[in-house]
Amino acid sequence: MNLVLAVDLGGTKIYSALVGPGEQILRRDVRPTEAALGQKRVIANILASLEAVTPAGALRDGSILALGVGAPGPLDPVTGRIIFAPNLQWRDVNLKEILQNALGLPVFLENDANLAALGEHLYGAGRGHDHMVFITVSTGVGGGLVLNGEIYSGAFGGAGEIGHMVVAPGGPVCSCGNRGCLEAVASGRAIKQRAVELISAGNGNKILHLAGGSPDEADAPAVTRAAQEGDPEAKEILETAGSYLGLAIANICTLLNPSLFVIGGGVARGAGMFLLDPAEKEAHLRVLPAFRESLKIVPAALLGRAGVLGAAAYARRKLAERG
Amino acid sequence: MNLVLAVDLGGTKIYSALVGPGEQILRRDVRPTEAALGQKRVIANILASLEAVTPAGALRDGSILALGVGAPGPLDPVTGRIIFAPNLQWRDVNLKEILQNALGLPVFLENDANLAALGEHLYGAGRGHDHMVFITVSTGVGGGLVLNGEIYSGAFGGAGEIGHMVVAPGGPVCSCGNRGCLEAVASGRAIKQRAVELISAGNGNKILHLAGGSPDEADAPAVTRAAQEGDPEAKEILETAGSYLGLAIANICTLLNPSLFVIGGGVARGAGMFLLDPAEKEAHLRVLPAFRESLKIVPAALLGRAGVLGAAAYARRKLAERG
Repeated sequence: MNLVLAVDLGGTKIYSALVGPGEQILRRDVRPTEAALGQKRVIANILASLEAVTPAGALRDGSILALGVGAPGPLDPVTGRIIFAPNLQWRDVNLKEILQNALGLPVFLENDANLAALGEHLYGAGRGHDHMVFITVSTGVGGGLVLNGEIYSGAFGGAGEIGHMVVAPGGPVCSCGNRGCLEAVASGRAIKQRAVELISAGNGNKILHLAGGSPDEADAPAVTRAAQEGDPEAKEILETAGSYLGLAIANICTLLNPSLFVIGGGVARGAGMFLLDPAEKEAHLRVLPAFRESLKIVPAALLGRAGVLGAAAYARRKLAERG
Repeated sequence: MNLVLAVDLGGTKIYSALVGPGEQILRRDVRPTEAALGQKRVIANILASLEAVTPAGALRDGSILALGVGAPGPLDPVTGRIIFAPNLQWRDVNLKEILQNALGLPVFLENDANLAALGEHLYGAGRGHDHMVFITVSTGVGGGLVLNGEIYSGAFGGAGEIGHMVVAPGGPVCSCGNRGCLEAVASGRAIKQRAVELISAGNGNKILHLAGGSPDEADAPAVTRAAQEGDPEAKEILETAGSYLGLAIANICTLLNPSLFVIGGGVARGAGMFLLDPAEKEAHLRVLPAFRESLKIVPAALLGRAGVLGAAAYARRKLAERG
């Protein structure tokens, strides 16, 4: 049997899958990460989740070839060491080694956004595009590069940190400590922050109403609902976020000249055209004019599955490289 | 004999070389491009320059394997077509075909900045760095990417247009028609423009003096000389340009996580630390903090030779790929 295991380790949930050849998810398990309960608990949860998708005896009879793991970074895909994962509160954890020892399988680890990029490239919106940039807009902003049909992770494994490109040099402080990163102006967190500021200043009534009267619930979904109901303040918040996203897209397009940008993540999916239309408009305005015609931006197609499908494909590729 | 010809076609001069294995330049010829005299004249000049470096009979006896050509872009390295070269006033010229027919040799064409990047990677400041970004600051700002030890030219051959990444969204108009591109704020042209503005406003006396009293001569070399003599206005112009260069470097580093940035071009070479120190400072400040330690910026080593050495190496590689 030509099977691989895959796990997408997120800050809030663990998504595991048993994947057949191609994009066939045969079994899946989703459970909370419980990051706040510490590293041991998270690893126990990963193992329990993998067990839930593994057919009895399959680890021993050789029908499972490998495990592909997507984890938040920065991490080192060669050693398998997670250098620092703020969402998990992990520092210097060799997750590859831990899982290899526990399962007796070859384990291949990569950045979660890179694997989602590979998933979209192979099975989703990026099919046929060997030079593709994936951007995920959720609580934060992440990204992954597929260049020449392969994940590009740079000299030290960290490439694709699109959320920390500076698009507003004098802008708000980012989670990374810098100012004006894309994440600081275009993430779900940034959208919420702008809505809360608006409400604090005595405005944003529609958003506040849709947030059930609680400024703390004035998050990206509430802002999106307000925009859908025609609220100009909410539209403007999403337009500003989208424009910054567009500026980042333009600069990446001018630098890398890819044939496609794929935009994923819960906030982008939810906000839809309220975020993507202004992004597209700004990107077309700002990109090197000679590249304007070839600039193409599409929404992601695989939603939550991109990560595990990418992880499974990555494990197969790495195994094949080993020969 | 294991020889290749190489030519670096610039807006002002043609640099041809006969290159032995490795980085051995056996013969060289430099002459004016004479772009203003039209396409036929430029092509005649290229052929005359190549003839000057070709040993008698070498085109017929098989001792020359190929010709590598660096040309301004955008161009299509696959077909060999120069799509548009503003410096030459060329549109849609298949230079590869023209030279192939004239010489009876396999011809390989690439963007001049990409080939300079490859040259620096193989023989210059970038030796040992498989993930390297080359930026050239001269009249304009260009760039080339070496990723996984190879030129990266994107989906359509245009990658590396670093000069047209937007670093100052509300900034001055660029030669490309956009606003606030790196080239519009950090090129030789931009430095001169700022000096001329300063002089027009009744300031910049030191620069004007060193420009021989003529505002039209208040170019990057004049500004640099003034800075070397301690002029605070000149220093500030170069510092501003350098800071923008640093912001672009930071964003590219956050996106691609390379192990080295190599800065070439006449203006960067002339201005030296007056440009590179503020660039380095700003880049360190703006890059994703996790990448700060690995960020390394060095001046180019090969000067004018990078282009032909890169072109020669590129021709050899492409020939080897053909088998």
